[in-house]
Amino acid sequence: MLEKKHFQRDATKVMEWIDDYFAQLESLPVKSKVKPKAIYEQIPAAPPESSEDLDQILQDLSEVIVPGITHWQHPNFHAYFPANSSLESVLAEFITAAIGAQCMIWDTSPAAAELEERVMEWLRDAMGLPANFEGVIQDTASSATLVAILTAREVKTDFRANEDGVPNNLRVYCSTETHSSIEKAVGISGIGKKNLVKIPVDEKMRLRADLLEARIREDLENGLVPCCVVAAIGTTGTVAVDPLPELAAICEQYGVWLHVDAAYAGTALLLPEYQWMIEGIDRADSFVFNPHKWMFTNFDCTAYFVKDVDVLIRAFEVLPEYLKTKSRGLVNDYRDWGIPLGRRFRALKLWFVIRSFGMEGLRKKLRHHIALNEKFAAAIGEHPEFELVIPPFLNYCAFRWVPQNETDEARLNACNEQLLDTINKSGKLFLSHTKIGGKYVLRMVIGQTYVEERHVLQALEILREATKMVPLGRPN
Amino acid sequence: MLEKKHFQRDATKVMEWIDDYFAQLESLPVKSKVKPKAIYEQIPAAPPESSEDLDQILQDLSEVIVPGITHWQHPNFHAYFPANSSLESVLAEFITAAIGAQCMIWDTSPAAAELEERVMEWLRDAMGLPANFEGVIQDTASSATLVAILTAREVKTDFRANEDGVPNNLRVYCSTETHSSIEKAVGISGIGKKNLVKIPVDEKMRLRADLLEARIREDLENGLVPCCVVAAIGTTGTVAVDPLPELAAICEQYGVWLHVDAAYAGTALLLPEYQWMIEGIDRADSFVFNPHKWMFTNFDCTAYFVKDVDVLIRAFEVLPEYLKTKSRGLVNDYRDWGIPLGRRFRALKLWFVIRSFGMEGLRKKLRHHIALNEKFAAAIGEHPEFELVIPPFLNYCAFRWVPQNETDEARLNACNEQLLDTINKSGKLFLSHTKIGGKYVLRMVIGQTYVEERHVLQALEILREATKMVPLGRPN
Ligand SMILES: Cc1ncc(COP(=O)(O)O)c(C=O)c1O
Ligand SMILES: Cc1ncc(COP(=O)(O)O)c(C=O)c1O
Repeated sequence: MLEKKHFQRDATKVMEWIDDYFAQLESLPVKSKVKPKAIYEQIPAAPPESSEDLDQILQDLSEVIVPGITHWQHPNFHAYFPANSSLESVLAEFITAAIGAQCMIWDTSPAAAELEERVMEWLRDAMGLPANFEGVIQDTASSATLVAILTAREVKTDFRANEDGVPNNLRVYCSTETHSSIEKAVGISGIGKKNLVKIPVDEKMRLRADLLEARIREDLENGLVPCCVVAAIGTTGTVAVDPLPELAAICEQYGVWLHVDAAYAGTALLLPEYQWMIEGIDRADSFVFNPHKWMFTNFDCTAYFVKDVDVLIRAFEVLPEYLKTKSRGLVNDYRDWGIPLGRRFRALKLWFVIRSFGMEGLRKKLRHHIALNEKFAAAIGEHPEFELVIPPFLNYCAFRWVPQNETDEARLNACNEQLLDTINKSGKLFLSHTKIGGKYVLRMVIGQTYVEERHVLQALEILREATKMVPLGRPN
Repeated sequence: MLEKKHFQRDATKVMEWIDDYFAQLESLPVKSKVKPKAIYEQIPAAPPESSEDLDQILQDLSEVIVPGITHWQHPNFHAYFPANSSLESVLAEFITAAIGAQCMIWDTSPAAAELEERVMEWLRDAMGLPANFEGVIQDTASSATLVAILTAREVKTDFRANEDGVPNNLRVYCSTETHSSIEKAVGISGIGKKNLVKIPVDEKMRLRADLLEARIREDLENGLVPCCVVAAIGTTGTVAVDPLPELAAICEQYGVWLHVDAAYAGTALLLPEYQWMIEGIDRADSFVFNPHKWMFTNFDCTAYFVKDVDVLIRAFEVLPEYLKTKSRGLVNDYRDWGIPLGRRFRALKLWFVIRSFGMEGLRKKLRHHIALNEKFAAAIGEHPEFELVIPPFLNYCAFRWVPQNETDEARLNACNEQLLDTINKSGKLFLSHTKIGGKYVLRMVIGQTYVEERHVLQALEILREATKMVPLGRPN
């Protein structure tokens, strides 16, 4: 068992372990190559009776655990969206753990509540969100979207849904491209997935406002109750940006809660050149983005902003005897701003990141990533055997391999699936995929905190090499 | 902005800051004394444009933030239930942050999924839970209980609630003493709080099984659908233990999901002498306890166990294109075992704690806390001006001050409220309160990882001294 008097000695061991990990990172396979159960089998079936040594645990960490890690902080990790981190954020997490405050209400750590209030204001203002929005940290965008839908549900039922249950005629709308968390939230909330209406998208994969309005009218005629529209600023598949001004006008007209999911792309709002993405945001009701995706702040850290905090609190408040405090009403008790009661001191890492990067530093990093993506996309576009399936946007690029003479779509899909598999198995690069209009497409996202141009050039090289290893693409 | 090449230098600064914090901890006021907005006002309204120095940030951390922290790891923190931590857990959190893996599915870090599977098995077996239960880490007990209720909801509606919405005749039962998270969950799930039936308790604050059964029968006669019973093993107010064998028999007979909330007291199951608390658990459907309360593992870390994993997954699964993997079906994709999609690598800290403490070390700590509580309760019981309101249990003690000659209950309540206020304002001790049969009662919980006998003796001394400072208790 560790002792406080040896904390520095023990923490130094851990720090050195981490430094080693960072040093090795680029030489490790990005995506773990282990087989199912391979790690499990190496861990004893029973816990030790007696205390084991830190050295032994760290050795097992290196030998047993690390081979089973998919290295999300590897500069060649370009899959999904990043869950990027930074040294600042890691050190802040260390402090958060050491302080170990449980920040459910203001009283249980006033500094955590008030720092959260400030950093959320910093982000709100820096991102061009309206000054009457208030922010709160949630664990994930999935939870924040659930919170938005639950709040909309309460508003539409005159705050009776929590109490009386959910009528089965509430309707939620989003595009066919929006994230699975919306479907999950509609299920959890008891609104029912059959009441989730997926509106088709235009050729740029954006929700079609005209079809949304037609659907809302139709629903109203059928006695259904339009409750919430979820607009995506940056969809998961293709980073499409839904037309906020049109959607906001419709929501206003029909009295529907407008929630904006900018989980990934929201970070780009720190750049003035992307402010156009949220034109109309002043007429939205809530907005979510993830500093834990592309803002150098460890998972989990989601920023949720809402225009009318009173309705948010009304939708979530419970006040048992043991949580009554004298400060109630004067301060923010954030446990009433979301689902879980307990809360970690997550504002600290945002404070560290924002201060140590500075707004300038943040913008510079983002622009660097966007520039790298432009370079990557240009190279893909020029290559005879690759094609950009949609134009690159932000630090995202969707492309596919088109081996010479291949025109059969099914075979093209198979080629690309095998190509992806080959690349990911190589351990040198990790990409993920999506489907666009039936086409199996590779997604490349360049959002790693410490990614450099050489990693992107390397990615191109690996891609080219990998095509040679897919027999399907070289029929003879 | 920090750089990897200086990581050791920067991490050393942070480590030294933490070591200083630990060294000072006992001299800091347990409960922060700051006034609302005092911290907020000290933080600039706008973020810095340019990068700021780590030294400056750490200095502000000490000067601006620490005074606003309520020190949950302070050995004189005896309020609520602890959110205790340990050096092992803090160092593991540091590593978790550095690795920065997002563990939503097996593919995104096999080692995280498989270590989670193993440590959950360790806990299950060590706690005497049935071998056919499977475990998963959730953020909080609140979320885990929500998950249990949502699963019960799906089962009772033949897996139609997610799809069709929630019928408004599902019923959930718990005692009048159970945690507010149940009420919150019933609201969120769309079952409706009016369908939450709070069953009265016996003189030991335990749910009355006879009344539960009568209520279930009555509901059935009225066409209502009993869906879920939540039994508490250790209620929040008084650590009461509901009669599991009777409740299990009733749930079995009427086909109701039985969820067991042992959020706090569950840890005591590591001790054979407390196994009686879960007699009948083999007939329960799900069980939750918080390593982040009394098992030396940083918040957040909740262990949720469920008998039928297939129904859990059926209740939560969503499978969009971008999350399809080849390993699907062979491995555990834990994002389908709960609400959020993204997940931190939380199994690591459990692994560190269990290995470094050893089972022996864990049991020793728990017994030490229980023994300290017995000592404390004995002293309270012997003191002429204090009374134990209920018998001490585990490391929990509920008592009140009864100034000589005072018999008026309203005035006694006021005295105790003022006493609590005086103590907590002193900064030397932090307790919280509850009400038992109309009596305002102080709760003392001795669960701090590094608490020693001297802290408990000190608490007694502070209590005695504080009574002298409450004018109401000394009328003349
Ligand atoms: C558009 C969008 N919304 C929501 C999410 C879910 O984010 P989280 O993992 O924080 O729940 C994602 C994740 O990729 C996303 O891309
Ligand atoms: C019995 C009980 N259940 C649930 C909870 C909620 O725990 P969490 O903060 O992990 O949601 C508590 C917290 O004190 C509790 O005592």
